Amino acid sequence: MVEDKENIQFELTDELIEKVELLVSNAEDKKLKSLLNEFHFADVAEILDELDLDDSVYVIKLLDSETTADILTELDEDTREKVLENLSAKEIAEEVEELDTDDAADIISELPEERQAEVISRIEDDEHREEITELLAYDEDTAGGLMAKELVKVYETWTVAGCLRRIRGQAAEVTRVHSIYVVNKEEKLIGRLSLKDLIVAKSEQKIADIAKDNVDWVNVNDDVEDVAKVMSKYDLEAIPVVDNNQKLLGRITIDDIVDVLKEEAEKDYQMAAGITGDVEADDSILELTRARLPWLFLGLVGGVGAFIIMYFFEENLPKEAIILFLFTPLIAAMAGNVGVQSSAIIVQGLANDDVKGSINSRLIKEMLLATLNGFILSLFLFLFVFAWEQDFKLALAISISLVAVIIIAGLIGTFIPLFLDKRGIDPAIATGPFITTSNDILGILIYFWIAKLILGI
Amino acid sequence: MVEDKENIQFELTDELIEKVELLVSNAEDKKLKSLLNEFHFADVAEILDELDLDDSVYVIKLLDSETTADILTELDEDTREKVLENLSAKEIAEEVEELDTDDAADIISELPEERQAEVISRIEDDEHREEITELLAYDEDTAGGLMAKELVKVYETWTVAGCLRRIRGQAAEVTRVHSIYVVNKEEKLIGRLSLKDLIVAKSEQKIADIAKDNVDWVNVNDDVEDVAKVMSKYDLEAIPVVDNNQKLLGRITIDDIVDVLKEEAEKDYQMAAGITGDVEADDSILELTRARLPWLFLGLVGGVGAFIIMYFFEENLPKEAIILFLFTPLIAAMAGNVGVQSSAIIVQGLANDDVKGSINSRLIKEMLLATLNGFILSLFLFLFVFAWEQDFKLALAISISLVAVIIIAGLIGTFIPLFLDKRGIDPAIATGPFITTSNDILGILIYFWIAKLILGI
Repeated sequence: MVEDKENIQFELTDELIEKVELLVSNAEDKKLKSLLNEFHFADVAEILDELDLDDSVYVIKLLDSETTADILTELDEDTREKVLENLSAKEIAEEVEELDTDDAADIISELPEERQAEVISRIEDDEHREEITELLAYDEDTAGGLMAKELVKVYETWTVAGCLRRIRGQAAEVTRVHSIYVVNKEEKLIGRLSLKDLIVAKSEQKIADIAKDNVDWVNVNDDVEDVAKVMSKYDLEAIPVVDNNQKLLGRITIDDIVDVLKEEAEKDYQMAAGITGDVEADDSILELTRARLPWLFLGLVGGVGAFIIMYFFEENLPKEAIILFLFTPLIAAMAGNVGVQSSAIIVQGLANDDVKGSINSRLIKEMLLATLNGFILSLFLFLFVFAWEQDFKLALAISISLVAVIIIAGLIGTFIPLFLDKRGIDPAIATGPFITTSNDILGILIYFWIAKLILGI
Repeated sequence: MVEDKENIQFELTDELIEKVELLVSNAEDKKLKSLLNEFHFADVAEILDELDLDDSVYVIKLLDSETTADILTELDEDTREKVLENLSAKEIAEEVEELDTDDAADIISELPEERQAEVISRIEDDEHREEITELLAYDEDTAGGLMAKELVKVYETWTVAGCLRRIRGQAAEVTRVHSIYVVNKEEKLIGRLSLKDLIVAKSEQKIADIAKDNVDWVNVNDDVEDVAKVMSKYDLEAIPVVDNNQKLLGRITIDDIVDVLKEEAEKDYQMAAGITGDVEADDSILELTRARLPWLFLGLVGGVGAFIIMYFFEENLPKEAIILFLFTPLIAAMAGNVGVQSSAIIVQGLANDDVKGSINSRLIKEMLLATLNGFILSLFLFLFVFAWEQDFKLALAISISLVAVIIIAGLIGTFIPLFLDKRGIDPAIATGPFITTSNDILGILIYFWIAKLILGI
């Protein structure tokens, strides 16, 4: 029977964690086992992430390797690293035996170099060991680094009946059968089939006759981001991976792509907020500082730059012009905001292949946009300054400067990511503090320069 | 045979668009058809997005409704709206007949109210019409709004052989068979099966005996974001949707979840950059202004606030203290950067259910973090100011203010998203210009207040 607990999203409560801790400290193994077996392995991983290291290791050693292998793949990287340090090479090899080749290779690749070889040598299944070794050779940012060796493969010369018979063997080791890949005698990918196609076909038909030849595939060296784009654009749930000779090497499934997409989105989001490195809210203060301080330092240098600019303007300005200085935070903020908006929309457009046309046409569009925004905003600022200071010329100088600053900030925010992208550099680094800081300084410089010109001082 | 073109990512070139435009204007229907039939429907949609409306409508009317229905689902919303305006209710109904119920309902829901009923009444297949009408009743942000009615359902009392026979009928209308759902005679979901399970089972076995009872499901009223979380956490490729009585209503597939995740990520990213509403780089200047101007206006108001604060400090400060004003852009920038970093990491943590522990423990952690960052940065600022002005007290006043500003900015950036989340408001609105602007003002206020105190002026 379907029970209610399976639908309701698992909730990690303090009570649950305390309960597990108590069972561990009392070594009530049987109760602990039966409690944890109620949960999905992804949920058990969440519990272990919260326990002390010793307790986590205790649980991992207690449960069957069939379950713990899956739990290991779902742990936070930090927790996993520490747990693995506490397992012997033989124990890790046993976990790895239970996993699909892609997950197995991921876990082994996280181990220190010297342990990797030891763990691999302890894997008893020869085929599994060889496949994992093959996968470890690929760069983790390529299709090869993401693919699994597990797939269902049939030869074009087989009959439907023979195929069904042999698939039973292959399918047993494949968690989910998305597509059946058809190869010729040189192992080259030439088509695909669904299980459904097999079931509806007559048993004496040849595979070559019922296979679909419009099979999408990616090269083993393709970038994972490109693989993600292809799979999400064409709504594919699995895609075969081939080498340069079209030989079938493995397959990538959509759940791995979902992870890639999430990581990409998080990286871009953090970059836009001035955080580098893949940190989480629960990381240590030191890790968080390492991710945040460099960008703050950039902001500090920018602020010092702004000070220096203002210092030299101040020397040459009459005392009554001090009112200009009181608007510098406004000018800097507007320059920063406009810059971030423009760069974010370009970075996102580039990620979605939405940015068409030349850099020039982009810049012209941004200029029109910034001019429109700038005029509206400057009108308000003009009215405020005029009402406050009763000085028409001053109000005019400040608001005209604002229009200029907004236009230039928009152009910089548009140009830099496009320029970086053309040069093959990730345009996302040009969002956040980078754009804000450069626009702050430039904005203040332009502001004083134009204001001085208009006020004739 | 597998040809090379299928792997290489489709590229939308100006030549290709010109070629299509030429074929349309010369009404070379046959050539046009054979050219476009080479491409995947998602690629044809990209071509149509670039054509003039008349040309797009021409192509849609030219191709078979089997192809065009899929193309319609992939068009940009703007293009689709315009194309649909140029099709009769009967023509739209014909397109809709070809689509799965979820895509059909999505397209109909975009039509103006008065056309919806007309199109629905023109759908010839009674079952399809009823199912679409049912789906249209659900809120688009719920599981019901995302699910399709197409699924493979078997009764627990059937045998494997009988099941395989009947599945051939059902499977024909389901694009991809992820799971076979097992129901009892009241249509309540009680388990699931994979095609693989069916194939390996003996033909006389009862479904009830081979079904797995640990089937995940979501309620039809569950929020799509929660559905996405469950599916990506448990690596599900499809999930059945049930009503409050556990009756099986439909299923949601991973490709729809990929779209939900992408949209969510884009929304948060844009929010952090001060852009609201789902705009793209290629939208019109007016649409982009509407999405950007409100946040810029907020920044303007903040800047005016900063001006007012500085104005009153300036009145009461001696002339030699003008040097303080030259550091306000630095102080504002640091307050803004720290605030955005803190809020972004909390917003992301909340989205990933990564934020554990109480608000208080979060605030204490952020305080430690900000203090560490603040001291390091202030040390540099102290050295710079002292070197520049040779004034120990001034350097001390400015750098101590900076520490205070950084700590408070960090606390605000942490507190506001947590507070909003507790109140059930999307914490993502508290990123970007909102945090920057409030921290700018508060930062400047704290800065002058502390500096005044230390300098004793």
